Amino acid sequence: MNIVIGLREMSGIADRLRSEGKRIALVPTMGALHEGHASLIRLARGNADVVVTSLFVNPAQFAPGEDFSRYPRNLTGDTELAQKAGSDMLFTPSAGEMYPGDFRTYVGVDELSTLLEGKFRPTHFRGVATVVAKLFHCVKPHIAVFGQKDAQQVVILRKMVQDLNFDIQIVVAPIVREPDGLAMSSRNVYLTPAERRDSTVLHRSLQSAVQQIGAGERNPSAILQTMTRVISGVRSTAIDYISIADPVTLRERTSLTAGDEVLISLAVRIGSTRLIDNCLITVPQ
Amino acid sequence: MNIVIGLREMSGIADRLRSEGKRIALVPTMGALHEGHASLIRLARGNADVVVTSLFVNPAQFAPGEDFSRYPRNLTGDTELAQKAGSDMLFTPSAGEMYPGDFRTYVGVDELSTLLEGKFRPTHFRGVATVVAKLFHCVKPHIAVFGQKDAQQVVILRKMVQDLNFDIQIVVAPIVREPDGLAMSSRNVYLTPAERRDSTVLHRSLQSAVQQIGAGERNPSAILQTMTRVISGVRSTAIDYISIADPVTLRERTSLTAGDEVLISLAVRIGSTRLIDNCLITVPQ
Repeated sequence: MNIVIGLREMSGIADRLRSEGKRIALVPTMGALHEGHASLIRLARGNADVVVTSLFVNPAQFAPGEDFSRYPRNLTGDTELAQKAGSDMLFTPSAGEMYPGDFRTYVGVDELSTLLEGKFRPTHFRGVATVVAKLFHCVKPHIAVFGQKDAQQVVILRKMVQDLNFDIQIVVAPIVREPDGLAMSSRNVYLTPAERRDSTVLHRSLQSAVQQIGAGERNPSAILQTMTRVISGVRSTAIDYISIADPVTLRERTSLTAGDEVLISLAVRIGSTRLIDNCLITVPQ
Repeated sequence: MNIVIGLREMSGIADRLRSEGKRIALVPTMGALHEGHASLIRLARGNADVVVTSLFVNPAQFAPGEDFSRYPRNLTGDTELAQKAGSDMLFTPSAGEMYPGDFRTYVGVDELSTLLEGKFRPTHFRGVATVVAKLFHCVKPHIAVFGQKDAQQVVILRKMVQDLNFDIQIVVAPIVREPDGLAMSSRNVYLTPAERRDSTVLHRSLQSAVQQIGAGERNPSAILQTMTRVISGVRSTAIDYISIADPVTLRERTSLTAGDEVLISLAVRIGSTRLIDNCLITVPQ
């Protein structure tokens, strides 16, 4: 496995690959890879000649007091998993080279960044958009693969790509879940065994929403109420938000009509661990 | 002369040129081209296989009440001048395609954008950085040529290129002046004949600064005082700012030492026309 650290080196490799007519796919990750990431790498593998997986725990997307310093890191395990899933290269830039002391330039996607997650993490998406723009310029991919798990991130990055005219195709892979429904996340390792059992409530609440809509419920408030009841039934939980929104504008829906696509998303703290999950559905006839 | 309007078309042409191994230079302009622009195009011509001159009056860099709507436009004259100077292509995107109604993504360079011009035009450089990022992604140049006339713009775009890892070389061309010293600018056409005569005071004040430094003056306050006196001697003038600053951080200098490079810059209104000028000098022994 080719591990590239330097930004100029990565950019030079990308130039060479492009001049040879190779199609480059980028899978941006923060490392601590799991089966969800493996599915992104496999999807990239099927759509490109060369798959670059970037591993970078991006300080710009963590606020002070968040889990930047304890975010799990595991380069050996990551290398193995990425290789097995079909990655040709790991790009593991250093924080010092990515964000030198005089770093001052940020990419911001207005409005979308202030909703949902943005209410609780006001600088998060500025950090995400900025690091992804930087990775795009270093790796020069034709396509980039992201997970639907971070639904709002996908919406914002699609908007950034469109607004700033990045000539890069964004491909989104479905959420990968544990057998009991918990969405895979590098942060799941923070959960105690009891919290791990409680954490399935996120998925159960989403299922309850889908069932209600399937049964004809068209009032978002009623659905949100049921979801809240399901989650609050588990004592270790604290809800940051539950949302039924338009999947492009992220504006809350006040009613549902057959054929609408809606994004049902939520953030719930289980003990001291903050988890997110979502589901994208089309309202049936 | 090949005139390209569509963003996707431009991007496709850039891909083709790059796959043929051609080196692309971009000269971003707002049109109303003059000899200053011609010098940029000639510089680009000497450094690339294909020179693309973009003409786009960028609404995002004008505040309400500024001169966006009356900014001079002259496609026929521009085409002639650009061709004569050696441009292979004009890229003239439409405002509608550059900024569709749901446009929300901006590139901001913190701190640098709030100083000097930024104090009087708080959203100006966000608009500049954003449109240049967009043009870079459409035209995919190897080098981009800017004029030293817009000194702060150059500082901010260099920072953006460095921070966001754009793989593009920024080349800066010296200021081109009228025989009487006035820096060429598309906005000079706004001046009445009397204002046009008064406008030479900007250059004269810069010359007085250079002379003082040459004569051994090392106190920026004293130099600024003289410049202010020179400019205020002309009745139609109103000073927005005069600055003696570090050319990278744009922080005001409180003293000068031999070997220092300093940026002396100013913005002065002559009647209702706002003009800027600057000079970059190294403090002699």
